[in-house]
Amino acid sequence: MNQLLSPSVALPKVASDLFAPIARDLEEAERVLARTLHNARPGVSRLIEHLNHYRGKRLRPALLLLTAHACGKVTAAHHTLAAVVEMIHTATLVHDDVLDSATVRRHVSTVNALWGNQTSILLGDYLFTHAFHLTSTLGDAEACRLIGEATNRVCAGELHQICQRGNLELTEQEYFDIVEGKTAELTACCCQLGALCSGQPAEVVERLTAYGRGLGIAFQIADDLLDLVGEERTTGKSLGTDLEQQKLTLPLVHLLENATPELARRVRQILGNPANHKREALRPILVETGALAYAQHRAEEIAAEARAELVCLPASPCRAILEALTERVVHRSA
Amino acid sequence: MNQLLSPSVALPKVASDLFAPIARDLEEAERVLARTLHNARPGVSRLIEHLNHYRGKRLRPALLLLTAHACGKVTAAHHTLAAVVEMIHTATLVHDDVLDSATVRRHVSTVNALWGNQTSILLGDYLFTHAFHLTSTLGDAEACRLIGEATNRVCAGELHQICQRGNLELTEQEYFDIVEGKTAELTACCCQLGALCSGQPAEVVERLTAYGRGLGIAFQIADDLLDLVGEERTTGKSLGTDLEQQKLTLPLVHLLENATPELARRVRQILGNPANHKREALRPILVETGALAYAQHRAEEIAAEARAELVCLPASPCRAILEALTERVVHRSA
Repeated sequence: MNQLLSPSVALPKVASDLFAPIARDLEEAERVLARTLHNARPGVSRLIEHLNHYRGKRLRPALLLLTAHACGKVTAAHHTLAAVVEMIHTATLVHDDVLDSATVRRHVSTVNALWGNQTSILLGDYLFTHAFHLTSTLGDAEACRLIGEATNRVCAGELHQICQRGNLELTEQEYFDIVEGKTAELTACCCQLGALCSGQPAEVVERLTAYGRGLGIAFQIADDLLDLVGEERTTGKSLGTDLEQQKLTLPLVHLLENATPELARRVRQILGNPANHKREALRPILVETGALAYAQHRAEEIAAEARAELVCLPASPCRAILEALTERVVHRSA
Repeated sequence: MNQLLSPSVALPKVASDLFAPIARDLEEAERVLARTLHNARPGVSRLIEHLNHYRGKRLRPALLLLTAHACGKVTAAHHTLAAVVEMIHTATLVHDDVLDSATVRRHVSTVNALWGNQTSILLGDYLFTHAFHLTSTLGDAEACRLIGEATNRVCAGELHQICQRGNLELTEQEYFDIVEGKTAELTACCCQLGALCSGQPAEVVERLTAYGRGLGIAFQIADDLLDLVGEERTTGKSLGTDLEQQKLTLPLVHLLENATPELARRVRQILGNPANHKREALRPILVETGALAYAQHRAEEIAAEARAELVCLPASPCRAILEALTERVVHRSA
């Protein structure tokens, strides 16, 4: 057990300056989250404390709260739901790290690296159930339904992805199916709940849901690009895991769909090779064929479409932040 | 990947003849469950089909439906909630099999043995979220809250147990704490929901909840006894896993709390020995010291207390089955 990375790393406060206007709301959501997860048993509470290291960008609670602000009304239900979406996201991170055998996340050892896979599985379950219970305390069955539906799709997307692992014939459509489930469903739900609980009419809720979905897809494409060409030092997490597990992402899907048979054969050979260094071997091919540029361009396109949905809201500082996010998610190094 | 045990084992229909009077309700709950978990993607649907092998006793949905019948009123909500508790139970089984590295359950290969741990983790998550979403479709936030609360305690109990793994000083109180969480909370919730949705007054709901809790504790003690002295052939699952993982159960807790220092030292030595055959080495000690008999007696005592709670209901065939269950759970070989 590697305790080296565990101890006194300073907790990142609200990660991005971009979120300064909603700092108090984010802090309130954090308080709800801490209160909800609190457990008196020392063994359990030590695990929950470690999760503080996992929370970095707070993108999902921020999305929910920014949407609420941009819609003109922030309520206690928003703070609760912001905590809920962060808990669900953290649950998926904890389980993802087991799936990926990841040892580092946000520059800190993962729960599985420190306490093993078994503990990680149960801790993820604990986070899921506490998120659902917290939602139910709002006394609003519709909120429970929306959170339930979103998490259903997140898990179906993840399950679909794992069933497609090793499928080197994955189509672009299938890639987008997976991403819409595993990532964009939750960001869509954040904006949907933010707008709904502000009492917005159906059309606005729908457009903001579409914004959240597009933002999530763009974010995931950028994340997949980082897994291929990012630096572990900057991103603070294990990289190259998609390749190791033969999970195809957009640049590779595009490359394989458009390469000459000769090149496609070579790429599949690299992917099938159990030896390491897949990233290094593939990078020049992905650059030369324009596959990386294609994926980056698609991410920017989808982000721009998401941004266009925001015209349904009056101009405001928080709308401006939602707009800025569509740039940030596709131009990032971490 | 061992496919040997997977294919055409006949699906157990409602396992016990005891449940014949509620066979139609159990079948309706099964239909709700199948409809809820259905997924069009072949990879995902194959996994969900395999779960049919996991469902044997249907104790939890039966408890919920028997309680409803004994309270005089069975509604569509009962069938839905019966499916919910079975899904939650199945989720914990799927994750437990990963925790225990179990290869066989109900005479069939486990999901982790066939498709690996990663798939099992995601499939368990899929079951959890679908259970919560299904609950929310009732439009009753209180039902969501009760299911959320029960699953919170189930997961906290499991997490507590894993944190106590290897603690050879576990007290009887701590053992009961863990069991009340990981097992009895869900059986209590079954009876609570069965009674609540039949419109019973608070006092009856409370007594039936206590019945479900007692039944669950007695069931778990009996299950722990099987892990120590049962036959894999009869139980249809991997045994001895508690010992392998140094999870102390009631007979061992009692033995260690009451043994001479010399005997306790010997028992701890056997438990600490990485070599196999712990079961064989411990069995004679557990028999001679009366530790097995003690645990069996405690299970019977708790089951009898549970049975006494049922006097709050009028005599009926389903009350009689609930009574009979308090005998069955403590005298079983599988």
